[in-house]
Amino acid sequence: MRYELYYWPSVQGRGEFVRLALEDAGADYVDVARLSERTGRGMSAMMGLLKNESLACPPFAPPFLKAGKQVIAQTANILLFLGPRLGLAPKSEAGRIWTHQLQLTLADWLTEVHDAHHPIAGALYYEEQKREAKRRAADFTAARLPKFLDYFERVIARNPGKSGCLAGRGTSYVDLSLFQMISGLRYAFPRAMARLEPKYPRLVALHGGVSARPRIAAYLASRRRIAFNQSGIFRHYPELDA
Amino acid sequence: MRYELYYWPSVQGRGEFVRLALEDAGADYVDVARLSERTGRGMSAMMGLLKNESLACPPFAPPFLKAGKQVIAQTANILLFLGPRLGLAPKSEAGRIWTHQLQLTLADWLTEVHDAHHPIAGALYYEEQKREAKRRAADFTAARLPKFLDYFERVIARNPGKSGCLAGRGTSYVDLSLFQMISGLRYAFPRAMARLEPKYPRLVALHGGVSARPRIAAYLASRRRIAFNQSGIFRHYPELDA
Repeated sequence: MRYELYYWPSVQGRGEFVRLALEDAGADYVDVARLSERTGRGMSAMMGLLKNESLACPPFAPPFLKAGKQVIAQTANILLFLGPRLGLAPKSEAGRIWTHQLQLTLADWLTEVHDAHHPIAGALYYEEQKREAKRRAADFTAARLPKFLDYFERVIARNPGKSGCLAGRGTSYVDLSLFQMISGLRYAFPRAMARLEPKYPRLVALHGGVSARPRIAAYLASRRRIAFNQSGIFRHYPELDA
Repeated sequence: MRYELYYWPSVQGRGEFVRLALEDAGADYVDVARLSERTGRGMSAMMGLLKNESLACPPFAPPFLKAGKQVIAQTANILLFLGPRLGLAPKSEAGRIWTHQLQLTLADWLTEVHDAHHPIAGALYYEEQKREAKRRAADFTAARLPKFLDYFERVIARNPGKSGCLAGRGTSYVDLSLFQMISGLRYAFPRAMARLEPKYPRLVALHGGVSARPRIAAYLASRRRIAFNQSGIFRHYPELDA
Protein backbone atom coordinates (compact mmCIF):
# COMPACT_ATOMS: atom_id res chain seq x y z
CA MET A 1 0.00 0.00 0.00
CA ARG A 2 1.37 3.40 -1.00
CA TYR A 3 0.18 5.96 1.54
CA GLU A 4 -0.45 9.55 0.50
CA LEU A 5 0.27 12.17 3.17
CA TYR A 6 -1.25 15.63 2.72
CA TYR A 7 0.21 18.52 4.67
CA TRP A 8 1.44 22.09 4.21
CA PRO A 9 4.70 21.81 2.26
CA SER A 10 6.87 24.42 4.00
CA VAL A 11 6.61 23.53 7.69
CA GLN A 12 7.10 20.45 9.84
CA GLY A 13 3.94 21.19 11.81
CA ARG A 14 1.59 18.38 12.73
CA GLY A 15 2.46 16.48 9.56
CA GLU A 16 5.91 15.76 10.95
CA PHE A 17 4.54 13.37 13.57
CA VAL A 18 3.10 11.26 10.75
CA ARG A 19 6.24 11.58 8.61
CA LEU A 20 8.42 10.27 11.44
CA ALA A 21 6.30 7.12 11.77
CA LEU A 22 6.28 6.51 8.01
CA GLU A 23 10.02 7.11 7.78
CA ASP A 24 10.92 4.94 10.77
CA ALA A 25 8.92 2.06 9.30
CA GLY A 26 10.41 2.51 5.83
CA ALA A 27 6.85 2.77 4.54
CA ASP A 28 6.00 3.49 0.91
CA TYR A 29 4.51 6.99 0.94
CA VAL A 30 4.33 10.23 -0.98
CA ASP A 31 4.23 13.67 0.61
CA VAL A 32 1.69 14.99 -1.86
CA ALA A 33 1.75 18.77 -1.35
CA ARG A 34 5.55 18.83 -1.69
CA LEU A 35 5.50 17.21 -5.12
CA SER A 36 5.29 18.96 -8.44
CA GLU A 37 2.03 20.44 -9.70
CA ARG A 38 3.03 19.16 -13.14
CA THR A 39 2.51 15.58 -11.98
CA GLY A 40 -0.97 16.44 -10.67
CA ARG A 41 0.26 16.76 -7.10
CA GLY A 42 1.42 19.76 -5.08
CA MET A 43 -0.76 22.20 -3.17
CA SER A 44 -3.50 22.07 -5.82
CA ALA A 45 -4.02 18.37 -5.15
CA MET A 46 -4.28 19.01 -1.40
CA MET A 47 -6.67 21.93 -1.72
CA GLY A 48 -8.67 20.00 -4.30
CA LEU A 49 -9.19 17.14 -1.86
CA LEU A 50 -10.07 19.53 0.98
CA LYS A 51 -12.72 21.20 -1.18
CA ASN A 52 -13.97 18.02 -2.82
CA GLU A 53 -17.71 18.07 -2.21
CA SER A 54 -18.19 14.40 -2.98
CA LEU A 55 -16.00 13.33 -0.05
CA ALA A 56 -18.27 11.67 2.53
CA CYS A 57 -15.66 11.91 5.30
CA PRO A 58 -14.10 15.36 4.81
CA PRO A 59 -11.10 16.42 6.92
CA PHE A 60 -11.41 19.64 8.92
CA ALA A 61 -7.75 20.49 8.23
CA PRO A 62 -4.41 18.94 7.23
CA PRO A 63 -2.70 16.65 7.94
CA PHE A 64 -4.68 13.87 6.39
CA LEU A 65 -3.68 10.51 5.00
CA LYS A 66 -5.09 8.68 2.04
CA ALA A 67 -4.89 4.92 2.46
CA GLY A 68 -6.62 3.29 -0.48
CA LYS A 69 -10.08 4.87 -0.51
CA GLN A 70 -9.95 5.92 3.12
CA VAL A 71 -9.14 9.55 3.99
CA ILE A 72 -8.09 9.91 7.62
CA ALA A 73 -7.45 13.17 9.46
CA GLN A 74 -6.38 14.30 12.94
CA THR A 75 -2.72 13.53 13.65
CA ALA A 76 -3.31 11.22 16.62
CA ASN A 77 -6.04 9.39 14.70
CA ILE A 78 -3.75 8.86 11.71
CA LEU A 79 -1.16 7.37 14.06
CA LEU A 80 -3.81 5.21 15.74
CA PHE A 81 -4.57 3.83 12.28
CA LEU A 82 -0.97 3.52 11.11
CA GLY A 83 0.59 2.24 14.35
CA PRO A 84 -0.31 -1.45 14.03
CA ARG A 85 0.18 -1.39 10.23
CA LEU A 86 3.71 -0.02 10.59
CA GLY A 87 4.69 -2.21 13.54
CA LEU A 88 4.85 0.86 15.77
CA ALA A 89 2.13 0.08 18.31
CA PRO A 90 1.65 -2.51 21.05
CA LYS A 91 -0.33 -5.60 20.10
CA SER A 92 -2.99 -5.60 22.83
CA GLU A 93 -6.06 -3.34 22.77
CA ALA A 94 -5.12 -2.00 26.21
CA GLY A 95 -1.61 -1.19 24.97
CA ARG A 96 -2.97 0.62 21.94
CA ILE A 97 -5.43 2.65 24.00
CA TRP A 98 -2.59 3.64 26.36
CA THR A 99 -0.27 4.61 23.49
CA HIS A 100 -3.06 6.68 21.94
CA GLN A 101 -3.79 8.33 25.30
CA LEU A 102 -0.16 9.45 25.49
CA GLN A 103 -0.34 10.75 21.91
CA LEU A 104 -3.44 12.80 22.77
CA THR A 105 -1.72 14.27 25.82
CA LEU A 106 1.23 15.15 23.61
CA ALA A 107 -1.21 16.79 21.15
CA ASP A 108 -2.60 18.97 23.97
CA TRP A 109 0.95 19.96 24.83
CA LEU A 110 1.67 20.82 21.18
CA THR A 111 -1.39 23.09 21.05
CA GLU A 112 -0.02 24.92 24.08
CA VAL A 113 3.34 25.32 22.32
CA HIS A 114 1.54 26.88 19.36
CA ASP A 115 -0.61 29.13 21.50
CA ALA A 116 2.47 30.41 23.35
CA HIS A 117 3.21 32.50 20.24
CA HIS A 118 -0.40 32.75 19.00
CA PRO A 119 -2.60 33.20 22.10
CA ILE A 120 -5.24 35.37 20.41
CA ALA A 121 -5.80 34.05 16.88
CA GLY A 122 -4.10 31.80 14.36
CA ALA A 123 -5.22 34.20 11.64
CA LEU A 124 -3.23 37.13 13.08
CA TYR A 125 0.52 37.64 12.79
CA TYR A 126 2.70 37.06 15.83
CA GLU A 127 3.53 40.76 15.87
CA GLU A 128 -0.17 41.54 16.33
CA GLN A 129 -0.31 39.50 19.54
CA LYS A 130 3.22 39.85 20.85
CA ARG A 131 2.23 41.43 24.17
CA GLU A 132 -0.25 38.64 24.89
CA ALA A 133 2.26 36.04 23.71
CA LYS A 134 4.80 37.26 26.26
CA ARG A 135 2.31 36.69 29.07
CA ARG A 136 1.24 33.30 27.79
CA ALA A 137 4.80 32.10 27.07
CA ALA A 138 5.89 33.13 30.57
CA ASP A 139 3.23 30.85 32.04
CA PHE A 140 4.09 28.14 29.52
CA THR A 141 7.81 28.01 30.34
CA ALA A 142 7.32 28.42 34.10
CA ALA A 143 4.39 26.09 34.71
CA ARG A 144 3.07 24.10 31.77
CA LEU A 145 6.35 22.99 30.19
CA PRO A 146 7.70 21.42 33.42
CA LYS A 147 4.30 19.85 34.12
CA PHE A 148 4.32 18.01 30.78
CA LEU A 149 8.02 17.10 31.04
CA ASP A 150 7.41 15.73 34.57
CA TYR A 151 4.55 13.65 33.26
CA PHE A 152 6.35 12.03 30.35
CA GLU A 153 9.49 11.40 32.45
CA ARG A 154 7.26 9.65 35.00
CA VAL A 155 5.62 7.53 32.30
CA ILE A 156 9.00 6.23 31.10
CA ALA A 157 10.09 5.58 34.70
CA ARG A 158 6.93 3.61 35.48
CA ASN A 159 6.84 1.57 32.27
CA PRO A 160 6.87 -2.04 33.52
CA GLY A 161 8.78 -2.97 30.34
CA LYS A 162 11.77 -0.92 31.65
CA SER A 163 12.57 -0.27 28.01
CA GLY A 164 13.29 3.43 28.19
CA CYS A 165 10.25 3.81 25.93
CA LEU A 166 6.90 5.32 26.84
CA ALA A 167 4.71 2.26 26.28
CA GLY A 168 5.57 -1.40 26.24
CA ARG A 169 8.88 -3.06 25.43
CA GLY A 170 9.62 -1.52 22.05
CA THR A 171 9.57 1.78 20.25
CA SER A 172 6.09 2.96 19.31
CA TYR A 173 4.91 5.98 17.32
CA VAL A 174 4.49 8.04 20.50
CA ASP A 175 8.24 7.71 21.21
CA LEU A 176 8.91 9.20 17.77
CA SER A 177 6.45 11.99 18.55
CA LEU A 178 8.12 12.71 21.89
CA PHE A 179 11.46 12.93 20.07
CA GLN A 180 9.89 15.57 17.84
CA MET A 181 8.50 17.50 20.83
CA ILE A 182 11.92 17.62 22.52
CA SER A 183 13.60 18.65 19.26
CA GLY A 184 11.05 21.39 18.68
CA LEU A 185 11.19 22.67 22.25
CA ARG A 186 14.99 22.88 22.04
CA TYR A 187 14.62 24.98 18.92
CA ALA A 188 11.87 27.23 20.28
CA PHE A 189 12.90 27.58 23.92
CA PRO A 190 16.66 26.85 24.11
CA ARG A 191 17.18 28.68 27.39
CA ALA A 192 14.20 27.12 29.17
CA MET A 193 15.16 23.67 27.91
CA ALA A 194 18.83 24.04 28.89
CA ARG A 195 17.66 24.90 32.40
CA LEU A 196 15.09 22.10 32.64
CA GLU A 197 16.66 19.16 30.80
CA PRO A 198 19.07 18.03 33.54
CA LYS A 199 15.98 17.01 35.55
CA TYR A 200 14.73 14.73 32.80
CA PRO A 201 17.41 12.14 32.01
CA ARG A 202 14.91 9.62 30.61
CA LEU A 203 13.47 12.11 28.12
CA VAL A 204 16.95 13.12 26.99
CA ALA A 205 17.92 9.46 26.57
CA LEU A 206 14.74 8.69 24.61
CA HIS A 207 15.43 11.64 22.31
CA GLY A 208 18.97 10.43 21.71
CA GLY A 209 17.85 6.87 21.12
CA VAL A 210 15.24 7.83 18.54
CA SER A 211 17.62 10.15 16.67
CA ALA A 212 20.09 7.23 16.37
CA ARG A 213 17.60 4.81 14.81
CA PRO A 214 19.04 4.17 11.35
CA ARG A 215 16.01 5.22 9.29
CA ILE A 216 15.35 8.26 11.48
CA ALA A 217 19.01 9.32 11.29
CA ALA A 218 18.92 8.96 7.49
CA TYR A 219 15.67 10.92 7.32
CA LEU A 220 16.94 13.75 9.53
CA ALA A 221 20.02 14.08 7.30
CA SER A 222 17.94 14.06 4.11
CA ARG A 223 16.21 16.86 2.22
CA ARG A 224 12.90 15.27 3.14
CA ARG A 225 13.30 16.74 6.64
CA ILE A 226 12.11 20.36 6.51
CA ALA A 227 14.15 22.59 8.81
CA PHE A 228 12.54 24.23 11.82
CA ASN A 229 11.48 27.73 10.83
CA GLN A 230 9.49 30.75 11.96
CA SER A 231 6.27 29.66 10.25
CA GLY A 232 5.82 26.37 12.06
CA ILE A 233 4.42 25.38 15.43
CA PHE A 234 7.85 25.55 17.07
CA ARG A 235 9.20 29.10 16.65
CA HIS A 236 12.18 30.72 18.26
CA TYR A 237 11.32 34.19 19.55
CA PRO A 238 14.01 35.03 22.15
CA GLU A 239 11.60 37.32 23.99
CA LEU A 240 9.32 34.31 24.70
CA ASP A 241 12.16 32.16 26.07
CA ALA A 242 12.55 33.39 29.64
CA MET B 1 -19.12 -4.21 34.30
CA ARG B 2 -19.55 -1.21 36.60
CA TYR B 3 -17.57 1.69 35.18
CA GLU B 4 -16.03 4.28 37.48
CA LEU B 5 -15.86 7.81 36.07
CA TYR B 6 -13.49 10.27 37.72
CA TYR B 7 -14.00 13.98 37.11
CA TRP B 8 -14.23 17.27 38.98
CA PRO B 9 -17.54 17.18 40.85
CA SER B 10 -18.82 20.74 40.39
CA VAL B 11 -18.62 21.30 36.62
CA GLN B 12 -19.82 19.54 33.48
CA GLY B 13 -16.48 20.08 31.77
CA ARG B 14 -14.94 17.32 29.71
CA GLY B 15 -16.46 14.67 31.96
CA GLU B 16 -19.90 15.51 30.58
CA PHE B 17 -19.07 14.01 27.18
CA VAL B 18 -18.42 10.68 28.89
CA ARG B 19 -21.47 11.00 31.17
CA LEU B 20 -23.76 11.52 28.17
CA ALA B 21 -22.56 8.29 26.54
CA LEU B 22 -22.90 6.29 29.76
CA GLU B 23 -26.37 7.77 30.43
CA ASP B 24 -27.64 7.24 26.89
CA ALA B 25 -26.60 3.59 27.02
CA GLY B 26 -28.10 3.05 30.47
CA ALA B 27 -24.67 1.83 31.57
CA ASP B 28 -23.86 0.84 35.13
CA TYR B 29 -21.48 3.54 36.37
CA VAL B 30 -20.53 5.61 39.38
CA ASP B 31 -19.41 9.23 39.23
CA VAL B 32 -16.75 8.76 41.86
CA ALA B 33 -15.74 12.31 42.84
CA ARG B 34 -19.40 13.28 43.40
CA LEU B 35 -19.97 10.51 45.93
CA SER B 36 -19.48 10.73 49.67
CA GLU B 37 -16.03 10.67 51.22
CA ARG B 38 -17.52 8.48 53.95
CA THR B 39 -17.92 5.64 51.47
CA GLY B 40 -14.29 5.94 50.40
CA ARG B 41 -15.16 7.92 47.31
CA GLY B 42 -15.37 11.66 46.64
CA MET B 43 -12.49 13.94 45.70
CA SER B 44 -10.04 12.07 47.94
CA ALA B 45 -10.51 8.93 45.87
CA MET B 46 -9.89 10.85 42.64
CA MET B 47 -6.83 12.67 43.94
CA GLY B 48 -5.57 9.41 45.43
CA LEU B 49 -5.71 7.69 42.07
CA LEU B 50 -4.06 10.66 40.33
CA LYS B 51 -1.19 10.58 42.82
CA ASN B 52 -0.93 6.79 43.05
CA GLU B 53 2.72 6.06 42.30
CA SER B 54 2.12 2.39 41.57
CA LEU B 55 -0.11 3.17 38.58
CA ALA B 56 1.76 2.07 35.44
CA CYS B 57 -0.53 4.07 33.13
CA PRO B 58 -1.12 7.35 34.99
CA PRO B 59 -3.61 9.90 33.61
CA PHE B 60 -2.30 13.41 32.98
CA ALA B 61 -5.60 14.90 34.14
CA PRO B 62 -9.30 14.06 34.66
CA PRO B 63 -11.53 12.79 33.22
CA PHE B 64 -10.48 9.21 33.47
CA LEU B 65 -12.42 5.98 33.51
CA LYS B 66 -11.74 2.85 35.48
CA ALA B 67 -12.94 -0.27 33.65
CA GLY B 68 -11.88 -3.28 35.65
CA LYS B 69 -8.13 -2.88 36.07
CA GLN B 70 -7.76 -0.50 33.13
CA VAL B 71 -7.50 3.25 33.79
CA ILE B 72 -8.21 5.25 30.63
CA ALA B 73 -7.84 9.02 30.22
CA GLN B 74 -8.37 11.63 27.50
CA THR B 75 -12.05 12.21 26.75
CA ALA B 76 -11.95 11.15 23.10
CA ASN B 77 -9.94 8.06 24.02
CA ILE B 78 -12.44 7.07 26.71
CA LEU B 79 -15.21 7.36 24.11
CA LEU B 80 -13.16 5.37 21.59
CA PHE B 81 -12.99 2.61 24.21
CA LEU B 82 -16.60 2.87 25.37
CA GLY B 83 -18.28 3.40 21.98
CA PRO B 84 -18.43 -0.22 20.81
CA ARG B 85 -19.09 -1.49 24.35
CA LEU B 86 -22.10 0.82 24.76
CA GLY B 87 -23.47 0.30 21.25
CA LEU B 88 -22.67 3.90 20.39
CA ALA B 89 -20.12 3.45 17.58
CA PRO B 90 -20.21 2.09 14.03
CA LYS B 91 -19.21 -1.55 13.62
CA SER B 92 -16.51 -1.24 10.95
CA GLU B 93 -12.95 -0.10 11.69
CA ALA B 94 -13.29 2.67 9.09
CA GLY B 95 -16.52 3.85 10.74
CA ARG B 96 -14.87 3.92 14.14
CA ILE B 97 -11.85 5.84 12.89
CA TRP B 98 -14.18 8.38 11.26
CA THR B 99 -16.29 8.78 14.41
CA HIS B 100 -13.13 9.25 16.47
CA GLN B 101 -11.79 11.79 13.97
CA LEU B 102 -14.96 13.84 14.42
CA GLN B 103 -14.64 13.57 18.21
CA LEU B 104 -11.05 14.87 18.03
CA THR B 105 -12.14 17.80 15.87
CA LEU B 106 -14.84 18.54 18.42
CA ALA B 107 -12.20 18.37 21.17
CA ASP B 108 -10.12 21.00 19.34
CA TRP B 109 -13.22 23.19 19.13
CA LEU B 110 -13.85 22.72 22.86
CA THR B 111 -10.31 23.84 23.68
CA GLU B 112 -10.96 27.00 21.66
CA VAL B 113 -14.18 27.60 23.64
CA HIS B 114 -12.19 27.33 26.86
CA ASP B 115 -9.40 29.56 25.64
CA ALA B 116 -11.90 32.24 24.59
CA HIS B 117 -12.21 33.09 28.30
CA HIS B 118 -8.75 31.85 29.34
CA PRO B 119 -6.34 32.83 26.54
CA ILE B 120 -3.31 33.39 28.80
CA ALA B 121 -3.32 30.71 31.50
CA GLY B 122 -5.72 28.23 33.06
CA ALA B 123 -4.14 28.98 36.42
CA LEU B 124 -5.15 32.67 36.33
CA TYR B 125 -8.64 34.04 37.00
CA TYR B 126 -10.72 35.28 34.09
CA GLU B 127 -10.51 38.80 35.53
CA GLU B 128 -6.72 38.64 35.20
CA GLN B 129 -6.96 38.03 31.44
CA LYS B 130 -10.18 39.81 30.58
CA ARG B 131 -8.62 42.20 28.08
CA GLU B 132 -6.97 39.35 26.18
CA ALA B 133 -10.16 37.28 26.41
CA LYS B 134 -12.12 40.04 24.69
CA ARG B 135 -9.73 39.93 21.73
CA ARG B 136 -9.70 36.15 21.53
CA ALA B 137 -13.47 35.80 21.95
CA ALA B 138 -14.05 38.35 19.17
CA ASP B 139 -12.04 36.17 16.79
CA PHE B 140 -13.74 33.04 18.12
CA THR B 141 -17.30 34.25 17.54
CA ALA B 142 -16.51 35.95 14.20
CA ALA B 143 -14.29 33.32 12.56
CA ARG B 144 -13.73 30.07 14.43
CA LEU B 145 -17.27 29.38 15.65
CA PRO B 146 -18.83 29.62 12.13
CA LYS B 147 -15.94 27.55 10.72
CA PHE B 148 -16.65 24.65 13.09
CA LEU B 149 -20.43 24.95 12.69
CA ASP B 150 -20.03 24.94 8.89
CA TYR B 151 -17.92 21.83 9.12
CA PHE B 152 -20.24 19.76 11.29
CA GLU B 153 -23.32 20.87 9.30
CA ARG B 154 -21.52 19.69 6.16
CA VAL B 155 -20.67 16.34 7.74
CA ILE B 156 -24.34 15.65 8.53
CA ALA B 157 -25.36 16.75 5.02
CA ARG B 158 -22.83 14.45 3.37
CA ASN B 159 -23.47 11.41 5.54
CA PRO B 160 -24.40 8.71 3.01
CA GLY B 161 -26.65 7.18 5.70
CA LYS B 162 -28.92 10.29 5.45
CA SER B 163 -29.69 9.70 9.10
CA GLY B 164 -29.37 13.24 10.38
CA CYS B 165 -26.48 11.88 12.45
CA LEU B 166 -22.80 12.63 11.98
CA ALA B 167 -21.56 9.12 11.21
CA GLY B 168 -23.40 6.12 9.91
CA ARG B 169 -27.08 5.26 10.18
CA GLY B 170 -27.55 5.51 13.92
CA THR B 171 -26.70 7.71 16.86
CA SER B 172 -23.09 7.45 18.00
CA TYR B 173 -21.24 9.03 20.90
CA VAL B 174 -20.11 11.95 18.74
CA ASP B 175 -23.75 12.96 18.17
CA LEU B 176 -24.18 13.13 21.95
CA SER B 177 -21.01 15.24 22.16
CA LEU B 178 -22.23 17.60 19.45
CA PHE B 179 -25.48 18.01 21.40
CA GLN B 180 -23.38 19.06 24.39
CA MET B 181 -21.37 21.53 22.28
CA ILE B 182 -24.52 23.22 20.97
CA SER B 183 -26.05 23.34 24.47
CA GLY B 184 -22.88 24.84 25.91
CA LEU B 185 -22.46 27.36 23.12
CA ARG B 186 -26.06 28.51 23.60
CA TYR B 187 -25.30 29.07 27.28
CA ALA B 188 -21.97 30.82 26.72
CA PHE B 189 -22.66 32.81 23.54
CA PRO B 190 -26.46 33.26 23.32
CA ARG B 191 -26.26 36.28 21.02
CA ALA B 192 -23.74 34.77 18.61
CA MET B 193 -25.67 31.50 18.50
CA ALA B 194 -29.03 33.20 17.95
CA ARG B 195 -27.48 35.00 14.99
CA LEU B 196 -25.77 31.90 13.54
CA GLU B 197 -28.18 29.04 14.20
CA PRO B 198 -30.64 29.75 11.36
CA LYS B 199 -27.84 28.79 8.96
CA TYR B 200 -27.41 25.36 10.55
CA PRO B 201 -30.74 23.50 10.45
CA ARG B 202 -29.11 20.06 10.62
CA LEU B 203 -27.18 20.91 13.78
CA VAL B 204 -30.31 22.31 15.41
CA ALA B 205 -32.27 19.20 14.44
CA LEU B 206 -29.55 16.90 15.78
CA HIS B 207 -29.51 18.81 19.07
CA GLY B 208 -33.29 18.47 19.35
CA GLY B 209 -33.22 14.80 18.47
CA VAL B 210 -30.59 13.95 21.06
CA SER B 211 -32.34 15.92 23.81
CA ALA B 212 -35.52 13.92 23.12
CA ARG B 213 -33.87 10.50 23.49
CA PRO B 214 -35.63 8.99 26.52
CA ARG B 215 -32.55 8.29 28.64
CA ILE B 216 -30.97 11.64 27.75
CA ALA B 217 -34.20 13.51 28.53
CA ALA B 218 -34.42 11.71 31.89
CA TYR B 219 -30.78 12.49 32.62
CA LEU B 220 -31.10 16.18 31.76
CA ALA B 221 -34.09 16.46 34.10
CA SER B 222 -32.27 14.65 36.92
CA ARG B 223 -29.98 15.93 39.65
CA ARG B 224 -27.15 13.99 38.02
CA ARG B 225 -26.94 16.73 35.36
CA ILE B 226 -24.81 19.54 36.80
CA ALA B 227 -26.07 22.97 35.67
CA PHE B 228 -23.88 25.12 33.42
CA ASN B 229 -21.99 27.54 35.63
CA GLN B 230 -19.19 30.09 35.63
CA SER B 231 -16.48 27.59 36.60
CA GLY B 232 -16.86 25.26 33.63
CA ILE B 233 -15.58 25.30 30.07
CA PHE B 234 -18.73 27.02 28.82
CA ARG B 235 -19.07 30.35 30.63
CA HIS B 236 -21.41 33.21 29.94
CA TYR B 237 -19.58 36.52 30.04
CA PRO B 238 -21.79 38.99 28.13
CA GLU B 239 -18.74 41.07 27.17
CA LEU B 240 -17.33 38.06 25.25
CA ASP B 241 -20.56 37.47 23.29
CA ALA B 242 -20.42 40.01 20.50
